[in-house]
Amino acid sequence: MNLLKEAIINRGSVAGEEILKVDSFLNHQLDIELLNAIGKEFKKRFEGKEINKILTIEASGIAIAAVAAQYFNVPVVFAKKVQSKNLDKETYKTEVYSFTKGRTYDVRVSKKYLNKEDHILVVDDFLAKGGASLGLIDLVDKAEANLIGVGIVIEKGFQEGGQLLRDRGVNLQSLAIVDRFIDGNIRFLD
Amino acid sequence: MNLLKEAIINRGSVAGEEILKVDSFLNHQLDIELLNAIGKEFKKRFEGKEINKILTIEASGIAIAAVAAQYFNVPVVFAKKVQSKNLDKETYKTEVYSFTKGRTYDVRVSKKYLNKEDHILVVDDFLAKGGASLGLIDLVDKAEANLIGVGIVIEKGFQEGGQLLRDRGVNLQSLAIVDRFIDGNIRFLD
Repeated sequence: MNLLKEAIINRGSVAGEEILKVDSFLNHQLDIELLNAIGKEFKKRFEGKEINKILTIEASGIAIAAVAAQYFNVPVVFAKKVQSKNLDKETYKTEVYSFTKGRTYDVRVSKKYLNKEDHILVVDDFLAKGGASLGLIDLVDKAEANLIGVGIVIEKGFQEGGQLLRDRGVNLQSLAIVDRFIDGNIRFLD
Repeated sequence: MNLLKEAIINRGSVAGEEILKVDSFLNHQLDIELLNAIGKEFKKRFEGKEINKILTIEASGIAIAAVAAQYFNVPVVFAKKVQSKNLDKETYKTEVYSFTKGRTYDVRVSKKYLNKEDHILVVDDFLAKGGASLGLIDLVDKAEANLIGVGIVIEKGFQEGGQLLRDRGVNLQSLAIVDRFIDGNIRFLD
């Protein structure tokens, strides 16, 4: 997806060999026009698939999922990382290790909003080692829902998450796959 | 806003005298069509105002802000509650006490994405005691940005947040103002 790749090159920045900062347009400040282009592209990639709900995880997945959902005409459910008084007692729970934050946390979805009649598209901003995506897939499995696919904005091709998902037969659609950063330069694998 | 009030009555639920659960459409599962109607209404309420950025707070404000931003043609910035390795070192910081979560947390925005040239619309899902909204206003003040107004989906009219903001002269637009819940019934003040 060229518009996305241009944004990564022109507005992203590299820190070390593994960290790609895209907080100017994707996960702190949000370029809504680009999010719309991303949503349209997800729709194209999953054209003809029966999808009745988009599942993502707070916080960075929410804007991407909400804007994309407009092209699918479906609701979004976002999994929660923090126990809130207002969250139902009856939840599906999984554990996710975040390498960015350096800790494991529980991730929950109310059983009301994920069930075996659901045909789920999982959406997230990044796929690196696969923690968040595998956690969301685990929630889909626990609800006995049907996983249609996983849509990722940026996959880090040099980490194992993409391979883990493809090995499980997941229909993974990554809109940009980046290679390890050499001397601060970003290359794409796709 | 009638569509919102109908959603609150038909799809919300009341727990005790103070908690209104709207997680079926606003802050866990997201009704994207309703979010679009909310976005259009914010645009109407702030018609003619110079707004170049929408500021919200993770996680529940993000979807509302992202969908609304489409009607303003502006980017969104969401303030972060958790320190991430990927967040810039240079941030504006404030403290917010969450009554829902029972704790105080730091809230940060990178200095790159909030500055004195900005004309900010603050958006959030709920206004109750005012913690989150006052925190966001504090970030706007610290950046010496211009606060144009605050757009809230649901104000709890029986708690002090709304009054606190109006007393400060803030242009506060709440799309639904709910009264205390008597016997599980929801009444609106506006």
